[in-house]
Amino acid sequence: MQDYQAPLADMKFVLREMVDFGLLAELPGFGDVSHDVADSVLDEAAKFAGAVLSPLNRSGDLQGARWRDGQVLTADGWKQAYARFVADGWGALACPSEFGGQNLPRVLSAMIEEMWNGANVAFALCPMLSRGTVDAIELRGSKALQDKYLAKLVSGEWAGTMNLTEPQAGTDLSAVRTRAVPTGGGRYLLTGQKIFITYGEHDLTDNIVHLVLGRVAGAPEGVKGISLFVVPKFLVNGDGSLGKRNDVHCLSIEHKLGIRASPTCVLAYGQNGGAVAELVGEENRGLEYMFIMMNAARYSVGIEGIGLSQRAYQAALAYARERIQSTEAGVRGGARVPIVRHPDVRRMLLLMKSQTEAMRALAAMAAVSLDAARLHPRAEERERHQAIADLMIPVVKGWCTENSVEIASLGIQVHGGVGFIEETGVAQYLRDARITPIYEGTTGIQANDLIGRKLARDGGRAAQAVTAQMRALANELAAERNLAPLAPAFSGAIVELERAIRYVVDNYAKDVRAVSVGAVPMLKLLGIVAGGWQLLRAALISQVRMSAPGGSAADAAFYAAKIMTARFYADHVLPQAGGLAHSILHGAVGALDEGVL
Amino acid sequence: MQDYQAPLADMKFVLREMVDFGLLAELPGFGDVSHDVADSVLDEAAKFAGAVLSPLNRSGDLQGARWRDGQVLTADGWKQAYARFVADGWGALACPSEFGGQNLPRVLSAMIEEMWNGANVAFALCPMLSRGTVDAIELRGSKALQDKYLAKLVSGEWAGTMNLTEPQAGTDLSAVRTRAVPTGGGRYLLTGQKIFITYGEHDLTDNIVHLVLGRVAGAPEGVKGISLFVVPKFLVNGDGSLGKRNDVHCLSIEHKLGIRASPTCVLAYGQNGGAVAELVGEENRGLEYMFIMMNAARYSVGIEGIGLSQRAYQAALAYARERIQSTEAGVRGGARVPIVRHPDVRRMLLLMKSQTEAMRALAAMAAVSLDAARLHPRAEERERHQAIADLMIPVVKGWCTENSVEIASLGIQVHGGVGFIEETGVAQYLRDARITPIYEGTTGIQANDLIGRKLARDGGRAAQAVTAQMRALANELAAERNLAPLAPAFSGAIVELERAIRYVVDNYAKDVRAVSVGAVPMLKLLGIVAGGWQLLRAALISQVRMSAPGGSAADAAFYAAKIMTARFYADHVLPQAGGLAHSILHGAVGALDEGVL
Repeated sequence: MQDYQAPLADMKFVLREMVDFGLLAELPGFGDVSHDVADSVLDEAAKFAGAVLSPLNRSGDLQGARWRDGQVLTADGWKQAYARFVADGWGALACPSEFGGQNLPRVLSAMIEEMWNGANVAFALCPMLSRGTVDAIELRGSKALQDKYLAKLVSGEWAGTMNLTEPQAGTDLSAVRTRAVPTGGGRYLLTGQKIFITYGEHDLTDNIVHLVLGRVAGAPEGVKGISLFVVPKFLVNGDGSLGKRNDVHCLSIEHKLGIRASPTCVLAYGQNGGAVAELVGEENRGLEYMFIMMNAARYSVGIEGIGLSQRAYQAALAYARERIQSTEAGVRGGARVPIVRHPDVRRMLLLMKSQTEAMRALAAMAAVSLDAARLHPRAEERERHQAIADLMIPVVKGWCTENSVEIASLGIQVHGGVGFIEETGVAQYLRDARITPIYEGTTGIQANDLIGRKLARDGGRAAQAVTAQMRALANELAAERNLAPLAPAFSGAIVELERAIRYVVDNYAKDVRAVSVGAVPMLKLLGIVAGGWQLLRAALISQVRMSAPGGSAADAAFYAAKIMTARFYADHVLPQAGGLAHSILHGAVGALDEGVL
Repeated sequence: MQDYQAPLADMKFVLREMVDFGLLAELPGFGDVSHDVADSVLDEAAKFAGAVLSPLNRSGDLQGARWRDGQVLTADGWKQAYARFVADGWGALACPSEFGGQNLPRVLSAMIEEMWNGANVAFALCPMLSRGTVDAIELRGSKALQDKYLAKLVSGEWAGTMNLTEPQAGTDLSAVRTRAVPTGGGRYLLTGQKIFITYGEHDLTDNIVHLVLGRVAGAPEGVKGISLFVVPKFLVNGDGSLGKRNDVHCLSIEHKLGIRASPTCVLAYGQNGGAVAELVGEENRGLEYMFIMMNAARYSVGIEGIGLSQRAYQAALAYARERIQSTEAGVRGGARVPIVRHPDVRRMLLLMKSQTEAMRALAAMAAVSLDAARLHPRAEERERHQAIADLMIPVVKGWCTENSVEIASLGIQVHGGVGFIEETGVAQYLRDARITPIYEGTTGIQANDLIGRKLARDGGRAAQAVTAQMRALANELAAERNLAPLAPAFSGAIVELERAIRYVVDNYAKDVRAVSVGAVPMLKLLGIVAGGWQLLRAALISQVRMSAPGGSAADAAFYAAKIMTARFYADHVLPQAGGLAHSILHGAVGALDEGVL
């Protein structure tokens, strides 16, 4: 097993060639982020990911997080690695500069997040949750809350968590029962139990800042009565020092299929009279605030999928290059060859590679829109980018994570029997990946969000703006002699996508149950075609670069590989569009029949 | 977690309504197998699977097999369960009656095998390997070998193993290095190391009979110099009693992603001078003999995939019926409902259900052909059935096992976060399933077998005989008013299948590398369409039964569900055919490009 190596060339290609860095430079606060700065941050992060986080990935999985009388111990070496992470300032990358953050564009911090996840997803979850906590307190917390918590959360000295789920309230947060009794001065005493709390308790930081959904006594039933609270593990004194232990305790941690080094906690609030809680924003608007964080968290989970896919791919490629087995297909006798020569192994590796690159490029596009939606000086541009981001976040979350499970599984398959042996390390990627289509909203939830709020609500306008760009690219491809073979599969897929969008928009209000049967197929269809759009953009850019004079042979080979990767995707992935569209348009009858299950 | 419940109604439907039992009754030896006998054997097996094997599935996974100084201990309770398995005569079901077997038709023993695998796949591996050993010795062993080993192997008092793989010889058996030196009288001394030997050592039986591939000193290089040997753990005296310990020892067992209760062994032969080995059949024909067993083993691994899929489905369905979450889609307010009401959950459950039923019916068809190919009195019928069995075995193996991984993964998804917790038990199904597309020949190997030996070699004749039957069914469906909506998707899929077969047949000799890129897509395409063929046959049969007078309401509901299950498959699975055909016909350029990887 080799340590994770960040795909720097691919990442820099996306940042330099595919992303509108000029746009980012125009956004307030990003003016000093040049390509050179970006490159050097990526290079440093790659070293940290490869040298510090990656070596702890398997040992952390083996040892797991351990619960002892309410304390949670992380695996050997994790405390030290986390301390270095904080000391080197990695926690603060995407955080606001006024609280000590580095305020990098999201597209750049997302690439670095991909590295943390590729190297060690169980580790990466801790700073990911802290960032969500920062977002919520920054956007909706009072000045007092911000002053008290943000600097330490941004630096990573303290960690954050998200407390949504209760045994009876998983996907359905309206069922949340945790109760908060006001004690004056914006303070409350909180009582309740939360489950599935990632890094709900651990030994990496001195304090843990829990964001908790609960109901103020007397609040309305359902989602309209949910408020958001900050509950620190240790109360914070006026001078910022740590005060007494708060009434929140870890009852147990889960024994999970994967991400075993990250503790998944049952947290009891108020077993001894009530946990001291501070309100974020206004009462009864907790769900709204949580969704701000959740959007960011969903995007981040999509990035987990990309990181895991990249890790699985590079392990499989390395094995396929080194494992000698059988002679060349169709050649009798002859020397045995590395299995990377075998057509089916190449097919599997290229499914892994092409989809991973498609996901990365699509996520990068969404990241630019996330920043522009927040920061662009012109309102109509903010709105346009918000629509793109809103449309793409469920796709980045749902499609990238579903793909990561398949890609990690393909990685095992490339290894054959050896892949099934835990020492090889690649089985862990599948175990780790398997949670990603579940947490922060299952793929089904993402897909319902997509068809309802993102497609039907605006009559498909945002999606049509995207498909119009796809069509323009298809025309450009058809006009490029070298790329023309890639155009028909893409154009065909766009037709299927448009047909499916039209069906969803036209029928959602009329028959939401029928349309919902096609929700996940719709999400996958949009992911596949939008990912193809980005890969084919990469091919077109590569074609232009190759045709320009003065490039090196290495560059030419890099660009040629980009074109062939897109070609593979056009021939193996885009043709799935027709089947998915069929399911969307015609798949309801059998699924909704009352007697069939 | 509930214990496994064999899908008796579905199994009996396949046996009573879909399988040509009349044909089986005509085959010598099967005359006394009536539907009533079959039903009562199934009922008894279902009890054993549910009450004895299923409760050991998770505890076996948790405890695992343990290695101690060359001994392997199975998990608590496994010895007792195996003893009951032997005492009840379950090991002997499909074995020849002259050695104490019950000589059941393969289609019936396959249903029972599905139960063992659904209940506890790690347990089921032991008798599965014994059966392979019985087959090889019965078909190619001398009378002396048969007399010495078969009765005990058939009863299950002794267990068997298959020893093919060595570190440098996984898929490529021509690289086998294990050496055999003749010592006279058909005896040899064997030296070498074998890896990945399932149940290579354990405490379930008094003796273990290893079938081992090796080379007689001086044999040709490559596959033409491989011989097959029997190497017992304990030598067998003339009176059948156990003699001295043979020179074969278990060096270690693997730590695996799944099937953890079944020991996967490294076996050293001849560390102390040589393991006493007896030749099976003739020297240098070992690979040929092994392939006889391998065909049977491949079919059995396909059945593992079906059993695991069924188990995952029933766990997911039970959870979806009991888990209350959110209100009905499109209904504001209202009561919370079981998640089985939610459209996307139904879609997932029906993907699981419809594909599992398709696989079971297809495997049953192949099983009938396996028997008829061996036993039919008329040579042309034997040949016809052999062609069907040859064509379908790689599909049953490859398609059913690939599906089982996806279906087990869907089972986790239906459970949401709870599915990721090991205590729930459904994560184990994915871990267990993940080996099935690998061992006994990876999906890539099955697919190469399909396109080369099964499609190209006979110019597609066997496949065309099958597609002609499919077309006939499509016409019947189109003429049945109630079923006509199922016909277009099926007809469209047949067109894609025929197009792909033609392409493979026409191009295999010309460009084997290019065609091989589409090998796995071809296997999946044939699996999907052939599975659909069987499900639509089931729908047509159900339609006829429903239309007949005098049926009960329960029967009508059962048949109606069969029709709707087929409808779902037609709308969600068959439409994948077009994309697969596209990959087969157009997918080679990107995959085979030299610079792309």
